[in-house]
Parts: sequence; structure tokens; C-alpha cells
Amino acid sequence: MLFIHVNHPWPNINSVLFRNFAHVIHILIHSVMRKIRTIEMKRLTVEEYHQAEKLPLIVVLDDVRSMYNIGSVFRTSDAFRVEAVYLCGICQTPPSTEIHKTALGAEESVSWRYFKTALEAVGELKKAGYTVLSVEQVEHSTKLQTFVPQRGLKYAVVLGNEVKGVHQEVVDASDGCLEIPQLGTKHSMNVSVTAGIIIYKFAEKLILI
Amino acid sequence: MLFIHVNHPWPNINSVLFRNFAHVIHILIHSVMRKIRTIEMKRLTVEEYHQAEKLPLIVVLDDVRSMYNIGSVFRTSDAFRVEAVYLCGICQTPPSTEIHKTALGAEESVSWRYFKTALEAVGELKKAGYTVLSVEQVEHSTKLQTFVPQRGLKYAVVLGNEVKGVHQEVVDASDGCLEIPQLGTKHSMNVSVTAGIIIYKFAEKLILI
Repeated sequence: MLFIHVNHPWPNINSVLFRNFAHVIHILIHSVMRKIRTIEMKRLTVEEYHQAEKLPLIVVLDDVRSMYNIGSVFRTSDAFRVEAVYLCGICQTPPSTEIHKTALGAEESVSWRYFKTALEAVGELKKAGYTVLSVEQVEHSTKLQTFVPQRGLKYAVVLGNEVKGVHQEVVDASDGCLEIPQLGTKHSMNVSVTAGIIIYKFAEKLILI
Repeated sequence: MLFIHVNHPWPNINSVLFRNFAHVIHILIHSVMRKIRTIEMKRLTVEEYHQAEKLPLIVVLDDVRSMYNIGSVFRTSDAFRVEAVYLCGICQTPPSTEIHKTALGAEESVSWRYFKTALEAVGELKKAGYTVLSVEQVEHSTKLQTFVPQRGLKYAVVLGNEVKGVHQEVVDASDGCLEIPQLGTKHSMNVSVTAGIIIYKFAEKLILI
């Protein structure tokens, strides 16, 4: 057996030196991963947001029932400067106490419009040169992990009702479908979580990298 | 100016040939992007899920207050076969009507454990060889768009309270911090949406591609 004798290099625990040493370590740790305070984040004001360059993406909600889901989509859209949210069919619109509860004011920064049907919205978007992609589990879909949005194009993504998804006629009118593969027991994911994953993918490839 | 005369190849609109032609086009569109029915999705049963290979990722929730957010994290974790969800501090645990409302049964498929504090969970995870990453806006964070999880490593990500985020001492105990850049007016994103973006990133890089 090998014994190693070490002259312990640490100063006496009561010494001023030790207390300074501990203080320096504390500062070092905090300077490495100190949480940034809200006032340090320097987020945009609503006016600055309206002027700022946007992600070339419009999020179309086709008959989304839950106002909390709609509000959540607004909040995520604000975070990645989505160009606009189009609310269609049974979607409620701001001002709404329920939408505000999850949007937390993002319904003031993010532009939105209402359409009687998502089909009408998609028709207008296609005429305006947008590439329209429905987010659905369909045959011959493009899996999200293989999808890379192209710079220079304008995109719109359609997300559907919590139970029924995107209407088949809206899928048919789209330029293609994006699908998030699911490997578990459930048949679908929450629409606001799905929107978050999709919007982040566009933001990551077009403005964050 | 150049004029091109084209012999229009379409058959007369009233002819049988035209109607057959339109019918074929209709079938073609539907065969290309037909929505897949629930019974065709062939999702796993809960028993099959328990046996299936998992994503090497544990999701740690540090004082998440909303049971709807907890349930939503379960639902997303099921979709990407997350190894487990660790519920810490004030997090409620299944069985719970509120958690079930957004988990929709995923609390039965996804493994979970409860810890009095996230710090305790992180300590155990580090001892077990997990790389622990807090999801926070901190100085010197790793931005999610530059992060690539390494194959062969086991990961845990910590997500914090809706208002206060991850505790500073949990951040300090982590091996690093992941940050999702935010470009809008709001200071943070919804915790279940954030979890969705993070979990998808691991799934995309480790099991989907």
C-alpha cells in the first residue's frame, strides 16, 4: 500500500487570507454562470419591435380552440420575431383575457390578422409569394430533422385544431407538409409546443446561426 | 415582343376524358399528402414504451408551479422517449387531474421521480455520470443553436420556475448552461415550450438524424 503525505496548501480557515480566497472563488463561480437579471436583458420595447427586422415566417392557426394555446404561440412568436400570426376560423382574437394570460403582452408586439378560414389565408399567402407548409402527419411529409429553410424565401406554417389538426383541404392547398416524428405512445403533441419547435427551427437556421 | 402559340393540351371541360383527368389529379393530390389516421400511426403501447430504447436525456423540473406545464413536459417527453422526468421542490406529482389534463396519459409511459430539491437531483445525476445542463439566461452560456449533444454521453437538463427560473445554486452545480436566444420584447418563454425546443434538439441530433 502506498501512502502519500501532502502538506495541505489551504490557509487556516479563520485567517483573513482564507476568507478572501473563499470570496474570490465565490465571485469566480458567479462570474462564470451568473443569471442575467431582467433589466440586463435589454429586450426591445413594443415600438422598437415593430421597427425591427422580422423572421420571414407567418404562423397560421387553423381552428385552434384554446386561447391559452393561441397566447402561447404569440409569446413564442415574439421571442423569435415572427412576421405575423394569422388567426383563422374558430380562433379567438385579441383583446382577450385568456390569450393575454399566456401571451403576457406579446399580442401587442406581434402583428396578427383574422381570416374566416385558413384556406382563405393560405390562398392569399400563396398569391403573395409565400411557401406554405402545413404541420401535419401526412403521407410523404418532410420530416423536420431533414428540413432546412432557404434564405430569400418567405414561409408560412399552418398549425391545426387540437383534436382534428389541419383541415385536409388546407393541407392540399399547401406547398408541402412538415412533420415532427413522434416515437412514444401519444398520437400528437400540444399545438403551442409544436409551434415552438417549428418556429425555433426557422429562427435557428435563418437568423441565429 | 415574342408571341408563342400553344395548342392547349387540356381536354374539353365537359368531356368524360376531362372528368376522369380531374379525378386522377384529385387522387394524386390526396395520395401525396393524405393525413395519416390515428390507427395508422402504430404508436407504442405503454408496455412497449417501457421496453423501448430511450433518448439519453433526463428532464429535471426545479420548482415548476403549473401542473399544466408539468403535464405538457410529460407529453413532449413521451413523444421523444425521454429517459425520465425528475420533479423537484414545489412540483406536484402524478396522479393529478391537472397534470393528466395536459399529459393525456404520458405520465403513465414516462418514468418519473420526486426530489425535495433540484440540487439533490443534480448531485445524484452527476454522481451517476450525467452531464447536467441548466436551461437559463446566464453569462457565458452555450447558445442552443451552437450546441451539439455528443453521442455516448448521458445528459440531464434543468428547467426552472415560471417566474424565478433555475435556482442560482443549481446553475452553479451544473456542468454548463444552455440558453435559447430571445429577440423580442418578453424576458422569457413558457417553460413547456422551452422544454419542447430543448428536448427536440437532443432528439434531432441523437435519434432522428
